[in-house]
Amino acid sequence: MAEFEKKPLNKVMRGPKRATYDKTKIYEILDSHFLCHVPYTFEGTAIVIPTAYGRKRDVVYIHGSMKNRMMLSLLNQSQVSFTVTHLDGLVLARSVFHHSMNYRSATVFGKPFLVANDADKMEALELIVDNMIPGRWKEAREPNQKELDATLVVGIEITDASAKIRDEGANDELADMDLDVWAGVLEIETNPGKVVKNADAKPELETPESVKGFRFVNHGVQG
Amino acid sequence: MAEFEKKPLNKVMRGPKRATYDKTKIYEILDSHFLCHVPYTFEGTAIVIPTAYGRKRDVVYIHGSMKNRMMLSLLNQSQVSFTVTHLDGLVLARSVFHHSMNYRSATVFGKPFLVANDADKMEALELIVDNMIPGRWKEAREPNQKELDATLVVGIEITDASAKIRDEGANDELADMDLDVWAGVLEIETNPGKVVKNADAKPELETPESVKGFRFVNHGVQG
Repeated sequence: MAEFEKKPLNKVMRGPKRATYDKTKIYEILDSHFLCHVPYTFEGTAIVIPTAYGRKRDVVYIHGSMKNRMMLSLLNQSQVSFTVTHLDGLVLARSVFHHSMNYRSATVFGKPFLVANDADKMEALELIVDNMIPGRWKEAREPNQKELDATLVVGIEITDASAKIRDEGANDELADMDLDVWAGVLEIETNPGKVVKNADAKPELETPESVKGFRFVNHGVQG
Repeated sequence: MAEFEKKPLNKVMRGPKRATYDKTKIYEILDSHFLCHVPYTFEGTAIVIPTAYGRKRDVVYIHGSMKNRMMLSLLNQSQVSFTVTHLDGLVLARSVFHHSMNYRSATVFGKPFLVANDADKMEALELIVDNMIPGRWKEAREPNQKELDATLVVGIEITDASAKIRDEGANDELADMDLDVWAGVLEIETNPGKVVKNADAKPELETPESVKGFRFVNHGVQG
């Protein structure tokens, strides 16, 4: 499948020109970030929680404590979704009306399932950690049995998805082109900043490769 | 009210040490960003959409087209919520299990209402634009009647809220302290980047004050 099917659930109604259903483009948005927003319903109110994720082929994994309200709620649903948003710029038009943002945002729908088997859990956790910061898994101590038992891992098998991408300058009305108002884009960058070593870390340990190599780019995980 | 009441809806169950119900702290998280994630339900599936917002006292405003599925859905609910997330760093512990993120995340609950009156709509749009980039409203052409009529504005009167803030180094198990594994924080920074003037913008127009002054800081909106 190269494209997700357009259904009422995932079809982009507002700004359809900016929509894409292309699997490669959508997975590129997923693989270039590690924080998603997962919505769920609690006593009739929709709530959304940010959480880390990792992808392998058509499954995305999230994790939390065994009592995590959001995750337990997902497991009671036959269909769930999550959204990954990259904010790339502020679009300033001559008119207030045409102000916008440049962004890449993917909304993914799928079937949730409990990852129960220890080996599968371990693999999912590795995907999540190495999607956050590639190479970190093998630098750190692996989860022991007690830690694994305390961790709830949920997989979401992707069935439907769409993305919206805006990546251009301001689009003003023809009637406004002659106004003396500046138009353009103020790009927004998300970058690694200072490295702050723990005060209790051994003095002789140097900044690891995972930290030195970290970038907000497509981590190119499997599949 | 200096603190939001802890109720089943907003009480932070996981990691309660990091929770705050302090109104000043929660509003500071809101006023330091302009992009929130709003969850809603479509045919039984919870979905979340990123959108811009502005705040005045205890009301947050969002806007969209008259046919915006998310916004129309909100107006059918008696209670809605949204979340604002600042990602501040990756927390790398000696053990995989204690890996985490530094963040400031506020989840706000409230009662949605349609902003119908033109003057109120105009004020709400000004709040949204100037929360995105302070000072921009008065640089650009104000919405005309046609544009105002095409814009749906929803207010959310805040009734409940909580936030979680993590802002510290890695917390490892005592048994792991002697491992030869680096621990610390890789900070993540979100900053204004390049300014890209529109190709069709008048050559003599210089970068406006709003763009030159933009920072990801508390914009200190009203109340």
